[in-house]
Amino acid sequence: MASEPGEPETALMIENNTKGLGPNVVAAVESEQASGGGAGEREARAVVLTGFGALSKLRVMKRSVPAPRRGEVLLCVKACGMNFLDLMVRQGNMENPPRTPIIPGFECSGLVEMLGEGVENFQVGAGVMAVMCYGAWAELACVPVENVFPLPPGMSFTDGAAFPVSFLTAYLLLFDIGRLREGMSVLVHSAGGGVGQAVAQLCATVPGVTLFGTASSSKHETIRGSVLHLIDRNADYVTEVKKISPEGVDIVLDCLCGEHTAKGLSLLKPMGTCILYGSSNMVTGETKSFFSFAKSWWQVEKVNPLRLYEENKCLAGFQLLPLLSRPDGARRVRDTMARLTHLYSKGVIRPRIDSVWALEEVKEAMQRIHDRGNVGKILLEPEKAPIPLMASDSTDTSEACDEEGEEDESECKEREPFIH
Amino acid sequence: MASEPGEPETALMIENNTKGLGPNVVAAVESEQASGGGAGEREARAVVLTGFGALSKLRVMKRSVPAPRRGEVLLCVKACGMNFLDLMVRQGNMENPPRTPIIPGFECSGLVEMLGEGVENFQVGAGVMAVMCYGAWAELACVPVENVFPLPPGMSFTDGAAFPVSFLTAYLLLFDIGRLREGMSVLVHSAGGGVGQAVAQLCATVPGVTLFGTASSSKHETIRGSVLHLIDRNADYVTEVKKISPEGVDIVLDCLCGEHTAKGLSLLKPMGTCILYGSSNMVTGETKSFFSFAKSWWQVEKVNPLRLYEENKCLAGFQLLPLLSRPDGARRVRDTMARLTHLYSKGVIRPRIDSVWALEEVKEAMQRIHDRGNVGKILLEPEKAPIPLMASDSTDTSEACDEEGEEDESECKEREPFIH
Repeated sequence: MASEPGEPETALMIENNTKGLGPNVVAAVESEQASGGGAGEREARAVVLTGFGALSKLRVMKRSVPAPRRGEVLLCVKACGMNFLDLMVRQGNMENPPRTPIIPGFECSGLVEMLGEGVENFQVGAGVMAVMCYGAWAELACVPVENVFPLPPGMSFTDGAAFPVSFLTAYLLLFDIGRLREGMSVLVHSAGGGVGQAVAQLCATVPGVTLFGTASSSKHETIRGSVLHLIDRNADYVTEVKKISPEGVDIVLDCLCGEHTAKGLSLLKPMGTCILYGSSNMVTGETKSFFSFAKSWWQVEKVNPLRLYEENKCLAGFQLLPLLSRPDGARRVRDTMARLTHLYSKGVIRPRIDSVWALEEVKEAMQRIHDRGNVGKILLEPEKAPIPLMASDSTDTSEACDEEGEEDESECKEREPFIH
Repeated sequence: MASEPGEPETALMIENNTKGLGPNVVAAVESEQASGGGAGEREARAVVLTGFGALSKLRVMKRSVPAPRRGEVLLCVKACGMNFLDLMVRQGNMENPPRTPIIPGFECSGLVEMLGEGVENFQVGAGVMAVMCYGAWAELACVPVENVFPLPPGMSFTDGAAFPVSFLTAYLLLFDIGRLREGMSVLVHSAGGGVGQAVAQLCATVPGVTLFGTASSSKHETIRGSVLHLIDRNADYVTEVKKISPEGVDIVLDCLCGEHTAKGLSLLKPMGTCILYGSSNMVTGETKSFFSFAKSWWQVEKVNPLRLYEENKCLAGFQLLPLLSRPDGARRVRDTMARLTHLYSKGVIRPRIDSVWALEEVKEAMQRIHDRGNVGKILLEPEKAPIPLMASDSTDTSEACDEEGEEDESECKEREPFIH
């Protein structure tokens, strides 16, 4: 895939400072700079984020992939999950954004292709799923073995790629932080998203749990079976919840941030917990990135700890990925994954897939998440061929849809996704 | 006990607005106004807080006690626990202070004297302990039956009065909110206090838990066996903890409030929890009450929820007493008490008693808590005779010790407490 005209070459320059990236990403990206490529290196297609900003910063390129390092596993990727966080990464809309160019993607499934030194608990050819700090959206990916998990019997690669981030997040939110127990009530925003649907399934495993969820009205029919009390995402949900449960709820799962955190706190019963696990309200347009982030930071209402004391409440923040690089965090993730695969094996939980896309369709796929069009997970499959475009489509179908009319003005092309 | 000269009579006027008080307190106090007293009413000695302010607002008086109402149990009180919160009540140093006059005290032990209508699970003469919203510091007390618990076999009245508030608080802090598990680390302030010592014993029930505690140096020798890493309460404990555990701790139990909350948050590991369960730093002098409260409110550093998100941390507030008046809260308290009495019966936990005082010594007892002189619980016993005063002592031995030299200037009389 050729670089677009007008794209500054510097966007493709590799910076030496690769702090915060997994060794796999650094190696893969650095290897492009090397003249000949080392022994055991192979070429593989990958989605590369060349700089922060609009969808045009995403390219599919061939990259050299090094052999796995000590403690790593090289995976032949069969499917990769897309999360809302990938949009925020693309925009650089986070506190410590990684250096570009980078291969995005936090989860995948595939076959073990090669073992790094010291890896003993996997065999070449085993089917696995993995969570990782970047690097998943590629044909080949190196992952630290602590973050690789065998696919439970009967789990497809599609399910395997859709499973880790959503279910780990949902489980840790509900049980580790929220202390969900029998008879409690939960409010989840974006109930139709990957985490929202995982939350719904996990809530159903506990007797007597009442689930409230906000989602676009257009999704209500599809997800009605999973959420007892569905509320339009534009409605005054505080009033709606209180109509049904005047005392409020025990757990609020807030992926929106901003004004919603104060609303969430106000909805809590005593001993309740409000957990901020995303900040999707920071993503509005395509490219506002840091300005949008800084604005949101100041707009969030600060909380007086004494209020929590007086009201017997708990306010928490949660991000899955920072846990991966800490020994105690990785252990917690492994323990949780063991519980989740057990639930999967018993048929109790199963990821909901929205749509599956080729790597080359990454922009369309990401636009779908941006527009909150998905119900369940959006996946990329390296082996999938893109759906041929209509003659009238440009080569850059996915730009923009920036409702505030910034940089990218072209219209967003609606196209029915391939449903798996 | 006669009222002191200069004490405005209005302090003893009963106000009709008794919102927020338990029915027993209201009834006991109102009954004094009635001319003859109803059928079944009895006279009993009680500590009465006649208004908010200095120790002089505490009196021992005879009060009429009504028969227990529906769902209540009348207790012949054998011992009552004193908590730091009682100081804050005396000062009116809380957001919604109760109306005075009021009988203070949140816990007691004793014998069931009479059953209100509908009470079936207790028999007259049974030994019990109870938590309650005021009213414990008296010879007789009516308590809603949900908050009364049988004394486990072998538990003395002294242990029974020292048990409920400290151990319920410690258990709910550590296990319900802090999610204590194997190998975690905990920092507790006021490690020598009633809750601090209960926290130490409960931490010891979980393998591999590391306990850090701050306490006055003078207490270190006495409590060294219960707290692995003891830190002087005036030391820079953040530095001291980080010397031993550079990554910080998993749980911070903060009963101090103010600047300590921000320090506690900074000491947390990712996925850690800082719980504010008291605000003893608000109590400095004797009578500053509301001003001190308001000042502290504004001095507490407010927390940006996004910081919790970025750092994977949890900030919680906890108060035991508001749970008692809610059905789900009372259920949680009962479940927790069942676990605690089981641990007591196995000899795993046992309240640490600092000293036992007569009702008439309530001022000296409270001064001891104010001065942070106690190790473990301070108790009052209605049947205990006060230790005779020396000829040189005034009748008002306990006034003041206000380090900021306000209203009450008399010197605090040191007296060795009777150790049970």
